[in-house]
Amino acid sequence: MELGPPGGSGPAEPGPRLRGLRGADAAASASSLSRFGAEAGCRAPAVAAVLPAGGSGERMGVPTPKQFCPILERPLISYTLQALERVSWIKDIIVAVTRENMETMKGIIQRYQHKRISLVEAGVTRHRSIFNGLKALAEDQPNCRLSKPEVVIIHDAVRPFVEEDVLLKVVTAAQEHGASGAIRPLVSTVISPSADSCLDHSLERARYRASEMPQAFLFDVIYDAYQQCSDYDLEFGTECLHLALKYSHIKAKLVEGSPDLWKVTYKRDLYAAESIIKERISQKVCVVMDTKEDEEHVGHCLEEMLKTELNHVKVTSGQDLQQIILEQCYNFVCVNVMTSDFEETQRLLNMVEESNLSILYPVVVISVHFLDYESVPLGQKMEKVMQIREFAKEAKKRNILLSGLLIYFPQEF
Amino acid sequence: MELGPPGGSGPAEPGPRLRGLRGADAAASASSLSRFGAEAGCRAPAVAAVLPAGGSGERMGVPTPKQFCPILERPLISYTLQALERVSWIKDIIVAVTRENMETMKGIIQRYQHKRISLVEAGVTRHRSIFNGLKALAEDQPNCRLSKPEVVIIHDAVRPFVEEDVLLKVVTAAQEHGASGAIRPLVSTVISPSADSCLDHSLERARYRASEMPQAFLFDVIYDAYQQCSDYDLEFGTECLHLALKYSHIKAKLVEGSPDLWKVTYKRDLYAAESIIKERISQKVCVVMDTKEDEEHVGHCLEEMLKTELNHVKVTSGQDLQQIILEQCYNFVCVNVMTSDFEETQRLLNMVEESNLSILYPVVVISVHFLDYESVPLGQKMEKVMQIREFAKEAKKRNILLSGLLIYFPQEF
Repeated sequence: MELGPPGGSGPAEPGPRLRGLRGADAAASASSLSRFGAEAGCRAPAVAAVLPAGGSGERMGVPTPKQFCPILERPLISYTLQALERVSWIKDIIVAVTRENMETMKGIIQRYQHKRISLVEAGVTRHRSIFNGLKALAEDQPNCRLSKPEVVIIHDAVRPFVEEDVLLKVVTAAQEHGASGAIRPLVSTVISPSADSCLDHSLERARYRASEMPQAFLFDVIYDAYQQCSDYDLEFGTECLHLALKYSHIKAKLVEGSPDLWKVTYKRDLYAAESIIKERISQKVCVVMDTKEDEEHVGHCLEEMLKTELNHVKVTSGQDLQQIILEQCYNFVCVNVMTSDFEETQRLLNMVEESNLSILYPVVVISVHFLDYESVPLGQKMEKVMQIREFAKEAKKRNILLSGLLIYFPQEF
Repeated sequence: MELGPPGGSGPAEPGPRLRGLRGADAAASASSLSRFGAEAGCRAPAVAAVLPAGGSGERMGVPTPKQFCPILERPLISYTLQALERVSWIKDIIVAVTRENMETMKGIIQRYQHKRISLVEAGVTRHRSIFNGLKALAEDQPNCRLSKPEVVIIHDAVRPFVEEDVLLKVVTAAQEHGASGAIRPLVSTVISPSADSCLDHSLERARYRASEMPQAFLFDVIYDAYQQCSDYDLEFGTECLHLALKYSHIKAKLVEGSPDLWKVTYKRDLYAAESIIKERISQKVCVVMDTKEDEEHVGHCLEEMLKTELNHVKVTSGQDLQQIILEQCYNFVCVNVMTSDFEETQRLLNMVEESNLSILYPVVVISVHFLDYESVPLGQKMEKVMQIREFAKEAKKRNILLSGLLIYFPQEF
């Protein structure tokens, strides 16, 4: 019974491996860790995630395995990794890919600068791939720089829209119950066919649920289960919660997930994912104000107006800008009332550039300046116009589309 | 126990009720009826379809019930009706809609010129809506112009991509077995939760199937089942195959359906449906040749070239043009080698116009003319150019985008 990764190799290290949490991550981490305390009344556990990504995608009807199918020119798995790495309290993300896709995967990690990722070789079935991921996290592995987590999340590479909320819920529930998983109502009635393809019986839809991802487990619970489970389970099983129940006698806590947790399975799901990503990008805008004092700031008026049109409007005077960028906001309006220079806009451009956000799609920044007719002479106004053109030219090279708007008004207006 | 449509009214008659099968329908009907004989070794039954469309679409997260949600500006249910009415051997289509949506539905039927549709009032549950549809078809209904079919198809208003193939399969199986339904493999593992939202047990995924639509029944089998079934079934049941089994003791024959049979349930499904419709329209092209004799006809060369880029390329010398239009081809290339006038193109334009295809989307027609440099004088060539402009201007008013391409060549070329 050969269960380990062929060749007995430890987890592969992709190029841009993390040197440690950066500023934004650390800040986000602190806030999320306190959420653990508030939500579950318990301390924050060490958490890792395992992503089986060894599937061949035969149901998609395309030659590329579905996790590598492009959505807006970026592979599906990259969106999923980004969703997980945005959650700063997930310390390590182990991805199981087949040997032939190992280089492809390393390329994706490098290109999209994914962090905290380790690669292991996938097994021939989903359960074997997950087991390989768990082995890489277990303490008894030689040459392994990963440390054993208290809780492990198991997620699918082809569920890109997982949110921190549901991850927090399953991890908290796993801490308390030993195992936990997201569920959804059944869309279709489930039936049992007889051997001759006739209806044997149908299940009462309301009494059953679809088991989705993410799931979370106390590491020892699920690792013990995998170590004990049969070859039949590893070959034909589909459900980690079942293994925890059968071998570790843990009844998983079930958590209602959102519809967006669905698994990208068919070609139509790629279409749907693309539309959702496009909608999310276009619906998110952040208004950056140059002061936090003024309740009457024009930024707040702009917020009210934008909210009638868009779903996600944030207003900030700058302190949580890094977090907003991290959450993939691609549209910014930088409103300058108090200052007459480009300091705020320049700061935003620098942060956007550092975040590598614009690697994927262009980031749009509109820099709005209110200039007093009386106090600002015409010459200075023209200087502004020229200055923003220079900025815009430079920014465009880095896929940031900067526009300037000068509002030149008389004092009494 | 009030099961009938409130007010005891018979099926409502929408405006443009059919006067009878038209030419194209009759031709298609004949060919499909013969398929019945070939596939099942039995005579063609009288077939009607019932579509419950009374749902509120609460899962969609939008105020419009999902069957009325627009896809490319056309309500979802209209696509489903079109898919059914394209199948000429379905004699009647009964749609169950709520009282408040009755006028909306009549408007849709009128606008998109749906045929063979009768409306009944929906019940408060899916089963009650289907029962109302069946009652409208049963012989014992007063004031009813519908006749009782031998086989009834039950389909969902929110499954727009149903093909004739699977309809034929379920109807044929229903004739033989009494009941039949389309199934699909399960995408997620199905689990049973305990009362405290913990995992009770999970089902082995390979042993179960998702019950999808369409389903078909011998009319008496399913009508008897509905007449006998309990209030509990009518309120909480979700599965017609279950009613046939429980009350008419018929084990339905299960038929594997295609992935496209999925039910539009969530907002993402609307996105997916839109992309599929766009793709289908753009991938279908018909090359019309002006002769059926010539194997070397340039139309066949064009066919080979187009096939490297597009999924659905048809070549016809005109005899099955009506059927191709009926199957919703929106792109035509009319190749004229033998004739130097616009007779063929004019015939195509007339057929497209009569079909009302261009009510939904623009139909694109490219009229290609090969003119011999030697035998056609320049004056005549110019006349052609002017003539096609006139045609194009007229056609555009009817949403047909006509372009002309004159290939003026020397004989020896």
